[in-house]
Amino acid sequence: MPIRPTSLKRLLAELQFAKPGDVKLPAIDPASKPFSRGDKADDKATVDALALELDTLQNLFYADRRFKLLVVLQGLDTSGKDGTLRGVFGRMSPLGVRTVGWKAPTEPERAHDFLWRIHQQLPGAGEITVFNRSHYEDVLVPVVGRQLTPKQTQQRYAQINDFERLLSETGTVIVKFMLHISNQEQRLRLQDRLDDPTKRWKFQADDLSVRKQWDAYQQAYQRAISATATAWAPWTIVPADSKTHRNLMIASVLKDQLQRLKLRYPPSDPALDRLRVE
Amino acid sequence: MPIRPTSLKRLLAELQFAKPGDVKLPAIDPASKPFSRGDKADDKATVDALALELDTLQNLFYADRRFKLLVVLQGLDTSGKDGTLRGVFGRMSPLGVRTVGWKAPTEPERAHDFLWRIHQQLPGAGEITVFNRSHYEDVLVPVVGRQLTPKQTQQRYAQINDFERLLSETGTVIVKFMLHISNQEQRLRLQDRLDDPTKRWKFQADDLSVRKQWDAYQQAYQRAISATATAWAPWTIVPADSKTHRNLMIASVLKDQLQRLKLRYPPSDPALDRLRVE
Repeated sequence: MPIRPTSLKRLLAELQFAKPGDVKLPAIDPASKPFSRGDKADDKATVDALALELDTLQNLFYADRRFKLLVVLQGLDTSGKDGTLRGVFGRMSPLGVRTVGWKAPTEPERAHDFLWRIHQQLPGAGEITVFNRSHYEDVLVPVVGRQLTPKQTQQRYAQINDFERLLSETGTVIVKFMLHISNQEQRLRLQDRLDDPTKRWKFQADDLSVRKQWDAYQQAYQRAISATATAWAPWTIVPADSKTHRNLMIASVLKDQLQRLKLRYPPSDPALDRLRVE
Repeated sequence: MPIRPTSLKRLLAELQFAKPGDVKLPAIDPASKPFSRGDKADDKATVDALALELDTLQNLFYADRRFKLLVVLQGLDTSGKDGTLRGVFGRMSPLGVRTVGWKAPTEPERAHDFLWRIHQQLPGAGEITVFNRSHYEDVLVPVVGRQLTPKQTQQRYAQINDFERLLSETGTVIVKFMLHISNQEQRLRLQDRLDDPTKRWKFQADDLSVRKQWDAYQQAYQRAISATATAWAPWTIVPADSKTHRNLMIASVLKDQLQRLKLRYPPSDPALDRLRVE
């Protein structure tokens, strides 16, 4: 049975951040499963049911056209961004949802400000766009690599907040998820990538060098989330060591978010009421 | 049980066109169901199974990265392009498939040749892109509207063939479907759009004026398909009065097409065989 909004609010109280402040990532256990009913098979069935409900809501969202939806998925390697796309968005018609996977910027992209390429890929009216990584990489990678001074980093946080406010004020609903996994879980998943011949193609040598900077990335995430958790673009931290729990939580939050919009079919011309097609 | 390639070849003999010639659309019954096993529930179950197989094949297609896949869906209003996206591609991860819905060209688009905007949206290595309408609108709408002379129309056919050959020679697999419905079926579906409050938002006054030019569109389709059925970008005519048959046929043809590519996981560095993640 899907989670009701009232209990959802309670469940989210410690994991959703809608104002700048001190997010303490280490205080959140990646192995916890606040949205789980205890039984994995039940949870999986709930995810499937939610994915179908999201498909129905997407259809209505598209018809309504008053809003745009941007979903941001952030998390370290193997945290489950691809799996979320499949598990949570995999039942929507490809008509209704578009994924953008962000890589390191190209040369022409670097010739512009860091939000230039982002702006071009944002959803239009009635559209749902999911960012697999996002502009948040620009306050993570160069921070860990010390290409930005603390002052420049603060400036970027503010630029992101202003940019997201523009989007929000012009009809974009922004939902940001940080997929939070443990160091040990990442080790297991990277090893699995290496050992499974159908997964090894995903393995990149770079994955290991990023892994070596684990603590620096945790800190950069904590600071970035803390600085960019706003009322118009809140962050939700998703304990993601369990893939089922990750999908369950993300699907629940999205469903709740879409239901709050009170979506409806657009008003129609009453002159059409008696029209007969010849 | 999915259709085997051998029987598929036989089934397709009269509906797949891979060389320019005289396609006789009126000779193809939109209500026929060559791919059906007779029982609708069975056919639906087969479509679901095929949709899941296509999801698996997509994953391998993405890993392989030797090819790009362009699927073109053409057909008159209500012929089922949106329904195909949901029924055939709706089980693929949104990571793996991208839809482009083509509308009338904008002013900046009209300032370029008609293939300029198309080129920008084509799939990259490992990607699957589905065109909901396509560059074929440019040899249908202006032909029916008499904005092109016969000579200009012939020139566009040749330009399309040359363009698609470039794509094919550079790794794009092109699969083009014409969703073929009857005049009577379109009447029923348009009426249903008007009568169903959850569908009326899809109704556009323009639909009726296009419907009045039914014969002109049938002829324009027949000529365009006939002129652009090539070995490197064949057309498949899909009898589409039955939605289940339409999905069954399209999913079967796509699965067959993907299987012919002998997809495989890319070779991996043997040095990774003994790597242990710390």
